[in-house]
Amino acid sequence: MTLPPLPVIRLKPKANARAIRHGAPWVYDNEIVTDRRTKALEPGTIALLEDADRNTLAKVAVNPNSRIFARVLERDLNLPVDQSWLVSKLSYALAMRETLYDAPYYRLVHAEADGLPGVIIDRFGDVAVIQPNAAWAERLVSELCVALQQVTGVAHVLKNASGRARGLEGLDDASAVLAGTAPDGPVPVPMNGAIYMADLTGGQKTGLFFDQRPNHAFAARLARGGRMLDVFSHVGGFSLAALAGGASRALAVDGSGPALTLAREGAAQMGQTDAFETRQGDAFEVMTALLEEAEQFDLVVCDPPAFAPSKKALDAGLRAYERVARLAAPLVKPGGYLGLCSCSHAADLAKFRTASVRGIGRAGRAAQLIHTGFAGPDHPLHPNLAESGYLKSLFFRL
Amino acid sequence: MTLPPLPVIRLKPKANARAIRHGAPWVYDNEIVTDRRTKALEPGTIALLEDADRNTLAKVAVNPNSRIFARVLERDLNLPVDQSWLVSKLSYALAMRETLYDAPYYRLVHAEADGLPGVIIDRFGDVAVIQPNAAWAERLVSELCVALQQVTGVAHVLKNASGRARGLEGLDDASAVLAGTAPDGPVPVPMNGAIYMADLTGGQKTGLFFDQRPNHAFAARLARGGRMLDVFSHVGGFSLAALAGGASRALAVDGSGPALTLAREGAAQMGQTDAFETRQGDAFEVMTALLEEAEQFDLVVCDPPAFAPSKKALDAGLRAYERVARLAAPLVKPGGYLGLCSCSHAADLAKFRTASVRGIGRAGRAAQLIHTGFAGPDHPLHPNLAESGYLKSLFFRL
Repeated sequence: MTLPPLPVIRLKPKANARAIRHGAPWVYDNEIVTDRRTKALEPGTIALLEDADRNTLAKVAVNPNSRIFARVLERDLNLPVDQSWLVSKLSYALAMRETLYDAPYYRLVHAEADGLPGVIIDRFGDVAVIQPNAAWAERLVSELCVALQQVTGVAHVLKNASGRARGLEGLDDASAVLAGTAPDGPVPVPMNGAIYMADLTGGQKTGLFFDQRPNHAFAARLARGGRMLDVFSHVGGFSLAALAGGASRALAVDGSGPALTLAREGAAQMGQTDAFETRQGDAFEVMTALLEEAEQFDLVVCDPPAFAPSKKALDAGLRAYERVARLAAPLVKPGGYLGLCSCSHAADLAKFRTASVRGIGRAGRAAQLIHTGFAGPDHPLHPNLAESGYLKSLFFRL
Repeated sequence: MTLPPLPVIRLKPKANARAIRHGAPWVYDNEIVTDRRTKALEPGTIALLEDADRNTLAKVAVNPNSRIFARVLERDLNLPVDQSWLVSKLSYALAMRETLYDAPYYRLVHAEADGLPGVIIDRFGDVAVIQPNAAWAERLVSELCVALQQVTGVAHVLKNASGRARGLEGLDDASAVLAGTAPDGPVPVPMNGAIYMADLTGGQKTGLFFDQRPNHAFAARLARGGRMLDVFSHVGGFSLAALAGGASRALAVDGSGPALTLAREGAAQMGQTDAFETRQGDAFEVMTALLEEAEQFDLVVCDPPAFAPSKKALDAGLRAYERVARLAAPLVKPGGYLGLCSCSHAADLAKFRTASVRGIGRAGRAAQLIHTGFAGPDHPLHPNLAESGYLKSLFFRL
């Protein structure tokens, strides 16, 4: 059977074809010769990318509605982008996770860096959650689901369509069950000796974040025998890890009642109900109240939402990070530890560190910086997008 | 007993007194009012630092022969800098290490960040090695030794005077035994389940580097069941950790015969003699030879000496890092892992990463960046010198 030839898109003469040859994964809309035919391509179409001299560079996924006009899928022009291609990408991704993790709970596919542009897949044992955040993946989501089951053997596959990037690709936000059934309640997820309860259908994004795993592990070493405070705790990321690592008590603070309920369920599964407290409320207000109550902890960790998600929000975001540091520092016992995290793309490591150090200084405390951590290895970076490492985690001793 | 008043040094009106108030640890020679009296101060004198308006800022250690004219020792002016002050600094430093490590093998004092400017102390069980790399510490080295024994209980204290910084301070390079006796052979050091042999009297610097410990641990997870290559191995840092972590075989390459002998002794102590090979020679030549022999490994790690120790050496250094990456990448099996390290101050993380990615690309390999690591928490950073994080460790999957 002969397949119809793929449509062709072409770089403008001024576009940087060399960057594509050297591994750049994206082509922007202003780099492409756009004629009527090109503009009419269905979002998610697989096409051939040529340079201005008509040399074919790669197979790409096209979306005329997106600023990222084309995403490189495959540089080997002989390989069809089909189900067996998906199987090979997933198998390659799985091999690394099986090397690194003893149990099947991890991010299996982290988009461009795992060779599947715009695709996020998280695995929770027998359940996988796909986020097809690019048009090509939305078109091939059934094939992706079948390939995923074939490679991993998971029984249940959910589609999470809540990612913000889907809007930029012109995709809807209708989540679905692609295979098996949706779990009829929160799923227990073992990590660093703790048990987290993940709400895979109602929670934030995929219901649990695997990215902080190595930073949870580092924090757990600091809290042994002590009392810790987990601010912006979500489902108890740092606090349950600390209890698993030997902390005597933990207090989790979050604005979300459902997140704290899941955190308490996790603590109960760990047999740590008595050591675990929660306080629902605005994190800034709760920290201020704890200060008035003259509370101090051996370890305080603050893992706030992205205060600087965009360049426009950078200045206000850095002020918010400084404020977090200023409010949290006095809650640390002398000689204790403070972990400060940022998941803001726009705030790079140096800027976030400066804001944190300034906030600690404004609180009248001196600090040593003992650890700088990023997302775990199941969140690899594409080398040409290495600045895309959004998650930063700083640990200080005060 | 009334002590004689401390001499006073004064900032020029243009100097940044605010920076000192906000935690800056150093005052440069061009920031100080230098008259005959100031220039005549003995290197290592403890003095009071005043701003231009004669407000006292801190107790400092002065060295008129150094570009770093004064180092902040103590901001509490009521505290005398004496043996009990040294005891309190050492006790504070020890508390963190005892929290973090199960066995007494670590960097106990990491200079400015641990409140003892210019002082490095490494601990190897019952033996400690002091590097007094600033004049004040040289003057107080006996008090430091007594305080160290009091706080840690170590029986043997060695002074290592080979640090390059001592020359800048006008200090000699005469090492000595300060307490107890010098060990009569290499000392076994347990780390990450491996055993390293540290030559504390004849080796490089303090004979063993603790800084790579977390990166050794990460590498060990990647090598399970596989074969690894450790280039610039020194005493076997990555290779012995890999064997301890379950690698089936390891090959260590280094230019130093004595370092490789210590590495083999470590492997023997671990009962891993059969799994451990060494090859002495120029690392670039050995990698070229391995390529010609068509050898490939599941994990390759290159931990070269500082190719870019200064800004002047930066360009040549980055080319050398690129060359390491280009030669090492073909030695990695498809789907295997490559660790590339830099201990160059001048090559920052972004520059080192770019050089590494370019080298991998020149070797015709595509990569995912799965881990970025720094020195361990027993090498804390002073927040105002956070850029001083010299050690960078990148792990790629190829």
